[in-house]
Amino acid sequence: MPATSMEELVSLCKRRGFIFQGSEIYGGLQGFYDYGPLGVELKNNIKAAWWRTNVYERDDMEGLDASIIMHRQVLRHSGHEATFSDPMVDNKKNNKRYRLDHLVKDQKADVIAKVAEAMGQSAENFPAVVAALNANPAQASEALRAAGVRDPFSGEVGEWTEPKPFNMMFKTTIGPVADDESYGYLRPETAQGIFTNFKNVVDSTSRRLPFGIAQIGKAFRNEITPRNFIFRVRELEQMEIEFFCTPGTDEDWHEKWLEARLSWWEAQGVPRSKIEILDVPKEDLAHYSKRTYDLMYDYPTLGHEEIEGIANRSDYDLGSHTKNQSELGLVARVEENLDSIAKLTIPHPETNKPVVPFVIEPSAGVDRAMLAVLSEAFTKETLENGNERIVLKLKPHLAPIKVAVIPLARNKAELVDLARSIKNDLQKLGLGRILLEDSGNIGKAYRRHDEVGTPYCVTVDFDTVGKGEDASLTDTVTIRDRDTLAQERVKISDLSSYLQAKLR
Amino acid sequence: MPATSMEELVSLCKRRGFIFQGSEIYGGLQGFYDYGPLGVELKNNIKAAWWRTNVYERDDMEGLDASIIMHRQVLRHSGHEATFSDPMVDNKKNNKRYRLDHLVKDQKADVIAKVAEAMGQSAENFPAVVAALNANPAQASEALRAAGVRDPFSGEVGEWTEPKPFNMMFKTTIGPVADDESYGYLRPETAQGIFTNFKNVVDSTSRRLPFGIAQIGKAFRNEITPRNFIFRVRELEQMEIEFFCTPGTDEDWHEKWLEARLSWWEAQGVPRSKIEILDVPKEDLAHYSKRTYDLMYDYPTLGHEEIEGIANRSDYDLGSHTKNQSELGLVARVEENLDSIAKLTIPHPETNKPVVPFVIEPSAGVDRAMLAVLSEAFTKETLENGNERIVLKLKPHLAPIKVAVIPLARNKAELVDLARSIKNDLQKLGLGRILLEDSGNIGKAYRRHDEVGTPYCVTVDFDTVGKGEDASLTDTVTIRDRDTLAQERVKISDLSSYLQAKLR
Repeated sequence: MPATSMEELVSLCKRRGFIFQGSEIYGGLQGFYDYGPLGVELKNNIKAAWWRTNVYERDDMEGLDASIIMHRQVLRHSGHEATFSDPMVDNKKNNKRYRLDHLVKDQKADVIAKVAEAMGQSAENFPAVVAALNANPAQASEALRAAGVRDPFSGEVGEWTEPKPFNMMFKTTIGPVADDESYGYLRPETAQGIFTNFKNVVDSTSRRLPFGIAQIGKAFRNEITPRNFIFRVRELEQMEIEFFCTPGTDEDWHEKWLEARLSWWEAQGVPRSKIEILDVPKEDLAHYSKRTYDLMYDYPTLGHEEIEGIANRSDYDLGSHTKNQSELGLVARVEENLDSIAKLTIPHPETNKPVVPFVIEPSAGVDRAMLAVLSEAFTKETLENGNERIVLKLKPHLAPIKVAVIPLARNKAELVDLARSIKNDLQKLGLGRILLEDSGNIGKAYRRHDEVGTPYCVTVDFDTVGKGEDASLTDTVTIRDRDTLAQERVKISDLSSYLQAKLR
Repeated sequence: MPATSMEELVSLCKRRGFIFQGSEIYGGLQGFYDYGPLGVELKNNIKAAWWRTNVYERDDMEGLDASIIMHRQVLRHSGHEATFSDPMVDNKKNNKRYRLDHLVKDQKADVIAKVAEAMGQSAENFPAVVAALNANPAQASEALRAAGVRDPFSGEVGEWTEPKPFNMMFKTTIGPVADDESYGYLRPETAQGIFTNFKNVVDSTSRRLPFGIAQIGKAFRNEITPRNFIFRVRELEQMEIEFFCTPGTDEDWHEKWLEARLSWWEAQGVPRSKIEILDVPKEDLAHYSKRTYDLMYDYPTLGHEEIEGIANRSDYDLGSHTKNQSELGLVARVEENLDSIAKLTIPHPETNKPVVPFVIEPSAGVDRAMLAVLSEAFTKETLENGNERIVLKLKPHLAPIKVAVIPLARNKAELVDLARSIKNDLQKLGLGRILLEDSGNIGKAYRRHDEVGTPYCVTVDFDTVGKGEDASLTDTVTIRDRDTLAQERVKISDLSSYLQAKLR
């Protein structure tokens, strides 16, 4: 049974060292999180699983790791300078600023209804209300006042300005002089580093269509109201693929990628039954998209929210970043580009003529993946003896700690030394993190490892070193299975092959 | 024989897809680089090797992954706001700005001598000249003019301002309002994320002294003159450990870490004989340091430059970030901190009284590691037949591609299908990237894989599928060894165990 509330996840994550608030000792920085000792392992395991499936196990993919800070021209020609913004309103009474759609959504039902009516829309269709507000700033400001929209901070009816777009990119000065041209952006998505390196990758690998470029890395969005733990943050990590294909084959590839991605989520313990596929309505599509599937995972407390977007970006991006646009027969409508020095084409597989390929983009969030994986794994069980336990039933390849080796008593050097030597041998198998757990309390150790999802605990006791009651148990250890709680006695010499079979 | 010049490395990196200039299609962004399909694998392998040695194979280490953007208070109390800066001078004639020491260093010898004399120093001791210039801004400006220091851009004698400190941190606005308090910094080192999470890690893991926290991640420095390829960049990646120990044991741990780190570099193919250990003179130590060893690797073209610093940071950092400083008997001189809400102490292992531990910090650069590893692996050889080849003799665990599986002819489905199935089986071993190389030209494929350091090439030929001249070769493939060039015929069924033994 997965987690039923975000609260119980947040509490576990803090207590057990998965996730901490960023800059916490200075009161915290909203929208920034730090991954603790177990969080970093889980996160790395999720990223490795994605890379394995999408780069290593395919024959049509290359990897990339582009820089975070990018030239302002990249984000200008990608369309982000003009369109990567949210409409904001200010309350003139106290100078507080809000994201328009969030502000309206958080009002009482009768207030929302009034706003909708003033804009000539039905409150049932909230996206249409927001669209109308954005399209008519003067009317919007009037509608907010007339409906009595309250300021969530003061609780009083606000005096609302007209909505204005607020660009969500983080900007920074590069070099010693802060003039009009010496700035760059922290990338708002990893995707642009792939498009700008398209020619470099093709030239150095001799790839032909179809093929993809995969990248994992940080992206930054100056969200006005970061919220819901690691769901909506300002510093996030993405796992993105740009899959380049011949125009005309794009719709097929779009379907194939939808299927491939659902199957990957399933393998991480996030079942299809918990993911709704949203075929994004035309009017809600991003500026670059021909069609987009949003995978909406049913998060505890939040409900269905996007865990991955799979967009058909047509030839918009390469078309926007290429020189000689007019000669290339682009399908997408792009802004003129007189800055790029590269022609972003590739030979058509049949005609051999230069073509700007179409792009399918499966784009998933690492942090959102982590939240979903934790949520599915979270289990509260009542044991036979009536006790309750919390256990993270993570897939073994995702578990932060694969095996805990526990000496039964921490003040017996004989047990601790043997446990350490077993740990060192198991570590060499390359399965991930193996922990020597010498806290000295076996019951506490089991509970801790249930809560952090360690699939197996190996206990070294007095029998193991020939000092117990049963001499036949010498050189054997107990293996405890996280999920079944079954305990098995295994020879130390068989331990490696036993655990390798279970964990690989 | 390692690389003899930076140029040949740069050329190989670009040609084979290791490293590209950032934002290249818009003319490039100075100090930013993108890692291509092979670069990302090599980089990930270096990071994994570091994590394995320092986190997995020790029993006294925890991992962490903190956010890049940090609260301004973190960088204020760390000392970076005040001291992480270089002195700059402007030329009033053309408003160009230069780093003072670089400007003077690049002048002709007689000009440098005049500057030195005006400052009452000897030109032989250049650091003393720079120190005198920094300490006396008015006199410095006069000295530069009198000596006729030329502007490298215009070539003319400049009209120089007084030197002013230029802070090298990248700053950015956080949240929708750009007021005096709504900004943060991109961390200039990963270290601060470790110090600020000290208490979180101790609380969630129950660690006692001594233990360390390890982190790999990006850091950002607005270098005035980024140069030397990926050696001095504005966006870099660090592998840092903060090892916390009881005061009084710090000097011992410092020596142990020096030894441990040299041994790690050796295992990555960077021999001790190429690393000079610089015991940094007291007057050159950073503000936080009690003593520092700089490991100076002999880079081609550049000469000995820092590849890793191992600093004894005393109790400076935790002491700077803690509350109740005056009660804690700090050894380091720290600025008053009235902002922190956490007491950063841990029980003394003997007395159990709260103590602020000392810190040993081994801090290595991923990009500089990559440059050193590539440089050592780079080999030009003359073969028996008189031909020359370039081969990257990378340690197998670092090689971007572990095995290339090559069908002898790319238009024979039988060979290609079998090669693909062999590739898929090998991929499952979890050794890293296995490549299906179906370019169809075996000689070119070998040359390419020599240049990118692939340890083994497996060739599927007509004998393999029983269509050659020797029926006894059916179901066997050829394995070619990168370094010895020896070719061996191995049964397909033995391939996994053969390669596993060689590559694990």
